[in-house]
Amino acid sequence: MALIVQKYGGTSVGSTDRIKNVARRVAHHHRRGHQLVVVVSAMSGETNRLLELAREISANPYPRELDVIAATGEQVTIGLLAIALQELGLKARSYTGAQVRILTDNAHTKARILEIDEANMRRDLDNGVIVIVAGFQGVDAAGNITTLGRGGSDTSGVALAAALKADECQIYTDVDGVYTTDPRIVPEARRLATITFEEMLEMASLGSKVLQIRSVEFAGKYRVKLRVLSSFDEPESTASGTLITFEEDDSMEQAIISGIAFNRDEAKISVMGVPDKPGIAYAILGPVAAANLDVDMIVQNIGESGHTDFSFTVNRSEYQKALDVLALERGHGFAAREIIGDNRICKVSVVGIGMRSHTGIASKMFKALAEEGINMQMISTSEIKISIVIDEKYLELAVRVLHRAFELENEPG
Amino acid sequence: MALIVQKYGGTSVGSTDRIKNVARRVAHHHRRGHQLVVVVSAMSGETNRLLELAREISANPYPRELDVIAATGEQVTIGLLAIALQELGLKARSYTGAQVRILTDNAHTKARILEIDEANMRRDLDNGVIVIVAGFQGVDAAGNITTLGRGGSDTSGVALAAALKADECQIYTDVDGVYTTDPRIVPEARRLATITFEEMLEMASLGSKVLQIRSVEFAGKYRVKLRVLSSFDEPESTASGTLITFEEDDSMEQAIISGIAFNRDEAKISVMGVPDKPGIAYAILGPVAAANLDVDMIVQNIGESGHTDFSFTVNRSEYQKALDVLALERGHGFAAREIIGDNRICKVSVVGIGMRSHTGIASKMFKALAEEGINMQMISTSEIKISIVIDEKYLELAVRVLHRAFELENEPG
Repeated sequence: MALIVQKYGGTSVGSTDRIKNVARRVAHHHRRGHQLVVVVSAMSGETNRLLELAREISANPYPRELDVIAATGEQVTIGLLAIALQELGLKARSYTGAQVRILTDNAHTKARILEIDEANMRRDLDNGVIVIVAGFQGVDAAGNITTLGRGGSDTSGVALAAALKADECQIYTDVDGVYTTDPRIVPEARRLATITFEEMLEMASLGSKVLQIRSVEFAGKYRVKLRVLSSFDEPESTASGTLITFEEDDSMEQAIISGIAFNRDEAKISVMGVPDKPGIAYAILGPVAAANLDVDMIVQNIGESGHTDFSFTVNRSEYQKALDVLALERGHGFAAREIIGDNRICKVSVVGIGMRSHTGIASKMFKALAEEGINMQMISTSEIKISIVIDEKYLELAVRVLHRAFELENEPG
Repeated sequence: MALIVQKYGGTSVGSTDRIKNVARRVAHHHRRGHQLVVVVSAMSGETNRLLELAREISANPYPRELDVIAATGEQVTIGLLAIALQELGLKARSYTGAQVRILTDNAHTKARILEIDEANMRRDLDNGVIVIVAGFQGVDAAGNITTLGRGGSDTSGVALAAALKADECQIYTDVDGVYTTDPRIVPEARRLATITFEEMLEMASLGSKVLQIRSVEFAGKYRVKLRVLSSFDEPESTASGTLITFEEDDSMEQAIISGIAFNRDEAKISVMGVPDKPGIAYAILGPVAAANLDVDMIVQNIGESGHTDFSFTVNRSEYQKALDVLALERGHGFAAREIIGDNRICKVSVVGIGMRSHTGIASKMFKALAEEGINMQMISTSEIKISIVIDEKYLELAVRVLHRAFELENEPG
């Protein structure tokens, strides 16, 4: 008998029929003798509908009251799922965030979980009751309703699993796991049976978007076994999904490379011919950060004759704003020969915990791209990934070439 | 400066525009220096939508979970109204039933209020904050969400007024007060400036439907000054409405008759020629009550030669069931010459606290009806009302005739 926390997102509970499906899936696991805590999101579209009502009244509604309104979305779903389980003859009880007592700070609309009281849930579980918890919400020390921000239901699931020391936290979504890359680009893309926590972080932040990044960090911090599965497959077939592990030697035959991630949402800016002296990076990026623009890749090369070139990428939607900030600063904060940019680029990354102990990954990557005539505009590396910036038009080609070069279509071993 | 509890029903908060209107009305009272507690229902249609979702999943959903779902309707409205008030530059804070701590018993979907904690609301009021409370809901001692049943928001309003010892409880609805009768039948019908608690009970239970009957009883028990007003009139003009009083001498010039109530939803059953002996009423009505059928008027006349006739009225929708029960019982529980019924009747009542001390009301009533050739099939009297059963087709005529006979179109005095 295991204690399992399952989390179902908005699409999985998007209609009463789908809620009945979730109930059948939960019942299936219950019949196998598992104790179950089920975390649910609002029915898809519901949170947007509620926030739209608030926006009809105020362009800038008070966050405390927004949370009061938004939290009702999940409250409806927990009641409906409890009824669906009772209809199957099972014992089930719903909990709002306040009823569990998921204590958060008071940062309305983006609160952080401080503590979870497990007493009520534990009593129910011991009595064979299936516990259903509203995701995305909590309560602050003064009794105010709080929400964790968009996608916060994943975090709720992981936090509950941590508090209850659950054997596994299963995140049900509309994909059946984490793939070596996007199957729409590479049909041979393969579902990974396991992926390490660090790889998952790189994959998620690089745009794989399967899990909310904060929930993965949370799982890492509390060593929660996290599994991504599809809520649309048959219960039996989804026992697999992708397991996110925290031990590098979980698998005897660890692949060198786990996957190819990519991101179309970036733009590149280069500040050419700046003085090669201490403080120049800060002189350029300080104003950008002060304007609240997020910077992703940063590359600086060795300069010649006392000058160097400095490049970085920003979110594509903030490209023009970043250029404006630099134009304003040029001549004051720093001197530069030229500032150039390109918003038709993309980033492609090779990710794998195995590259730590294997040399030659970069050369294999660069050779594969060179053979197809794809020019790399920027290169950036970390311990477990190599990212490049290329012309946007080569995105699909580059992903396919790299997927093949690292033989990701084959099981490792 | 007065402390006023205002309650707005589903129609008054049926859209974000209407919620903004309510906010302006509340702001108007706030500017006059009053402390305000505002109780709101769910937006019209919302409670039905929520219950329908539950019914799509189960024909017989668990009441605890129904309450979890239904309570979200009011929770959305309190958040929206708080935002609308903040948008007008006022301080406002929303409270769910659990956040106030409106403690109820655990009779889900029809819970009764046991106790209200006024501490949080009082602190807000003292700080100039407008308090907004979700109607219809509370929390039981174990922390479960409960609801008070349909129309329970009126009861929430009155209970809060009682707990806070408010100067007045104002119930805003889509009519602007209690009328001498239905203005759709008698265009000259006049709004009553005051009505006594006992008259209101008779008017409401006889089908006037302005206020939920339980809230009126509650107001009587705790001596809450209750006023019915329209939420669609201008704030100034509705300072009047109808005040429900608990002192008979509140008004120097008390009218003898306050209004004419009526009800089309009844059917009449007569059990003819039953033995005129003790226990016969119970022999007939016992089985009817055991079948959970509500009985309204009961009339038994003096009999002749050891036999009597026994008549009563039931809800029209339960007419056939009542006949079936009696047919089954006849010859076992009681003997009867004949059982006859009529489901095309109506009840018309003359209501007035003044008739206690005035004779001749009945004769004036009967004379007026006789002059129009309206035959009375049943007559029943209480201290402050006289009810008659007549053929349904005479309903409008009878109401008009009686309204004129008692000169209800004129202010008393």
